[in-house]
Amino acid sequence: MTHASHDLTLADIARHLNVAFEGDGSQPIRGLATLKDAQADQVAFLANRAYLKDLAVTQAAAVLLHPEHGKSCPVPRLEIDNPYLGYATLSQLFDPLPARDIPGIHPSAVVAESATLGEGVSVQANAVIEEGVVLGDDVIIGAGSMVGADSIIGEGTRLHANVTVCHGVVIGKRAILQSGCVIGGDGFGFAHDGGQWHKIAQLGGVVLGDDVEVGSCSSIDRGALGNTVIGNDVKIDSQVQIAHNVTVGDHSALAGCVGIAGSTHVGRHCMLGGGVGLSGHLTICDGVQVTGMSLVTNSIHEPGVYSSGTGAMNNAQWRKNAVRFKQLDEIAKRLSRLEKNHRGQS
Amino acid sequence: MTHASHDLTLADIARHLNVAFEGDGSQPIRGLATLKDAQADQVAFLANRAYLKDLAVTQAAAVLLHPEHGKSCPVPRLEIDNPYLGYATLSQLFDPLPARDIPGIHPSAVVAESATLGEGVSVQANAVIEEGVVLGDDVIIGAGSMVGADSIIGEGTRLHANVTVCHGVVIGKRAILQSGCVIGGDGFGFAHDGGQWHKIAQLGGVVLGDDVEVGSCSSIDRGALGNTVIGNDVKIDSQVQIAHNVTVGDHSALAGCVGIAGSTHVGRHCMLGGGVGLSGHLTICDGVQVTGMSLVTNSIHEPGVYSSGTGAMNNAQWRKNAVRFKQLDEIAKRLSRLEKNHRGQS
Amino acid sequence: MTHASHDLTLADIARHLNVAFEGDGSQPIRGLATLKDAQADQVAFLANRAYLKDLAVTQAAAVLLHPEHGKSCPVPRLEIDNPYLGYATLSQLFDPLPARDIPGIHPSAVVAESATLGEGVSVQANAVIEEGVVLGDDVIIGAGSMVGADSIIGEGTRLHANVTVCHGVVIGKRAILQSGCVIGGDGFGFAHDGGQWHKIAQLGGVVLGDDVEVGSCSSIDRGALGNTVIGNDVKIDSQVQIAHNVTVGDHSALAGCVGIAGSTHVGRHCMLGGGVGLSGHLTICDGVQVTGMSLVTNSIHEPGVYSSGTGAMNNAQWRKNAVRFKQLDEIAKRLSRLEKNHRGQS
Repeated sequence: MTHASHDLTLADIARHLNVAFEGDGSQPIRGLATLKDAQADQVAFLANRAYLKDLAVTQAAAVLLHPEHGKSCPVPRLEIDNPYLGYATLSQLFDPLPARDIPGIHPSAVVAESATLGEGVSVQANAVIEEGVVLGDDVIIGAGSMVGADSIIGEGTRLHANVTVCHGVVIGKRAILQSGCVIGGDGFGFAHDGGQWHKIAQLGGVVLGDDVEVGSCSSIDRGALGNTVIGNDVKIDSQVQIAHNVTVGDHSALAGCVGIAGSTHVGRHCMLGGGVGLSGHLTICDGVQVTGMSLVTNSIHEPGVYSSGTGAMNNAQWRKNAVRFKQLDEIAKRLSRLEKNHRGQS
Repeated sequence: MTHASHDLTLADIARHLNVAFEGDGSQPIRGLATLKDAQADQVAFLANRAYLKDLAVTQAAAVLLHPEHGKSCPVPRLEIDNPYLGYATLSQLFDPLPARDIPGIHPSAVVAESATLGEGVSVQANAVIEEGVVLGDDVIIGAGSMVGADSIIGEGTRLHANVTVCHGVVIGKRAILQSGCVIGGDGFGFAHDGGQWHKIAQLGGVVLGDDVEVGSCSSIDRGALGNTVIGNDVKIDSQVQIAHNVTVGDHSALAGCVGIAGSTHVGRHCMLGGGVGLSGHLTICDGVQVTGMSLVTNSIHEPGVYSSGTGAMNNAQWRKNAVRFKQLDEIAKRLSRLEKNHRGQS
Repeated sequence: MTHASHDLTLADIARHLNVAFEGDGSQPIRGLATLKDAQADQVAFLANRAYLKDLAVTQAAAVLLHPEHGKSCPVPRLEIDNPYLGYATLSQLFDPLPARDIPGIHPSAVVAESATLGEGVSVQANAVIEEGVVLGDDVIIGAGSMVGADSIIGEGTRLHANVTVCHGVVIGKRAILQSGCVIGGDGFGFAHDGGQWHKIAQLGGVVLGDDVEVGSCSSIDRGALGNTVIGNDVKIDSQVQIAHNVTVGDHSALAGCVGIAGSTHVGRHCMLGGGVGLSGHLTICDGVQVTGMSLVTNSIHEPGVYSSGTGAMNNAQWRKNAVRFKQLDEIAKRLSRLEKNHRGQS
């Protein structure tokens, strides 16, 4: 699946990373691969010691690695302090998508007259841009996507196909919205009276910062009164739910299937593992990591790693333990009683 | 983000709520806000004692509150028994969406000749209405949404953009379907034979009652034989999965990321917290609340609050406890043995 | 909701299943139903002993059942070794969808000139087929669906409405993709450097085998370098998230809300219950079952049933036990101390 959008040589690669190298600079480079799978026209990388064993036998054209591993490399090497960052940088060169993004409005797209489009904007087939929308330069709106009235999208942002941005949403620069995600659906707000629910119109919006990514089928709800706010460089995986009036600080990352309930504030540089749930109205300070599928019901005021739950075990063994969990308070009391009796005897 | 669709004064607001007030009725009201954030042309509300401290310093034009707090209010007051309901009522006045819904069929929409459309229906850009569909009066079908063959949608119901209603679905009046939700996808039904799966065509439909709301990216599967049935005034948040032949009773509310497995029956006035999972073929009686991320594997026959799991703690502390969970049955047995020995000694 | 696409008699049904029967073969059969609900023109089935009590009183035109229950059947019987498979087979006869799929490209659909379409292909209203796509014979692309550049879809595969298949995805034969699902969105890959995230272009693709089903609003991310690979006859329910470079072996089934983190390998004939989470970089061997909402953080090398978590209980009781969970390590240590003392006394 990796194919270069144009012809690159090993010398081009080294120049792009601004690293020196020894070897045949004219070697054509067709793509990237792991140390194990790389062929003679692919560049590989060593970013994790667990793969050191693969370095000795790699067939790659060259390997991105830290200088400390340079001597163990059997092929031309590209020495760099953060090889994983080097790999990220190179990966952009081999992405086939940008070459296909021809600026212009597809005839089947529907763009409101009152919308303002920057230069180089691409609105693809059957997309819809409603009244008052502002699209910055080089924005790409994928096929079937919808941008609701009065929303503002910053330059260089890409909506993949079938994305929904509701009305009154503000998105920063260079953001990436994967297919099927929904930004600005109504928050879940109802007043209860006489046994019935009465809808609270969700009058706030959503503000996404610069360099935000939102995964496939994720949803970020609009605020009830103020806005739901996602900071700069926040990365959100697929199937994530962010409720109304949540705020997420800059540089935080949320893995797949995370759910954050209303009005919770997540700090900067936080990392939430897959399936983590945060209750509503909490404050999570900067630098907090929560491991997969944990439930957080109280605010967290100290940076660090937090967890809940228990890992899977054989079902027969699990059944015995799970039953005991329901007796846990009683077990603790029996233990205390026994300790007391024991002390009485001594 | 809050902007009135027309000019409103404080007197208009009071009249709309049918409450008396003292003060300058000619004060223009531009929107709603919290006690803390409200400016001089916004109305605030006090619905939770936790915010009493904000009342004393509010800058709001007026405050919706219970008569018991009237004397503490430094600005004109709108006294009402359920201030949160009052807020819900007023919020509708400031929703910018309705003013934009111009009846009519956008030229890019595709509407089958055999479809029947009521008065005041709006079918927006690139929406698709298939054969035999019936849309009641004032139905709004958002951009890019699809209504499958023979589905029936009651008056005043709104599909936001990019909603999918599959064939043979029945939706009541005044329902709201947020973007990206899917009503009537196939249930997950397969017969197992010879190590392979054989698909069971899902021949039932989905019936949604009146005043139902379905959140962004949620899915409600069609029944295998009979219907999946969602009662009146049921509120469903985002990223919720409802499997085939589930029934949910009137006035129940399901928070984000809830999953309900096939053929489970949820009663009336139930509340499921975020991420709750219900196993299949259960019966949950009326008036049950389940707290966030709990797993329910048995039917519940008594109203009340139910929970499972444990909250997050510091990872180092958690590791020690989680390991002990796997020894729990053994711990309980050791305790019993010790108690027995102890009794033997006494 | 069940209506035959053409007129069928009981004799037709028996012939279709290749089973003998006694009774009036001319009886028209209008659909299928449960033993309890079946009317005189519907066929029912007995596939679970729990419903034996309903057999005695069924009003069905005929019942599909195992020969061992033949004598208990008060109406004409269709004896078959696997009645549930018989039901699956018959269900296809009553599916109203196929009759509506008229081959051809709807005028509102956008199909790139460089796309290659087989015979009998149906591209429905407002669907988009990008450059270089190949659609096999009898492929159906539902309204509003999008197939990205260079993707290949095998014969007889159906995309329901509003499905997104991103660029460079390969889908086998007879696959079924429910509405709102996204195949080939970017995996969640970023290099961390200087407190910031740097995107890794996701250069791999997704390969789905033959007879795969993907549920509503599910997402399968594209690989970072190699492909994400879903085997033949894998069945995936709604709201499922499959991360980059995951592989799932043939004939496995994943229930609703499952999440699988990156580079995990799931074997053949596995079954993951609703809401199950698998951490990244694991290997799950063939024949593993994981019960609902369990978290798997280690590889599994033995077939069998695995579980974690605890079932819901009354909240008051749960609170007491959940608090004790946080003391569990201390409780275990106290017990050991007591045992030691006790041994010292004896």
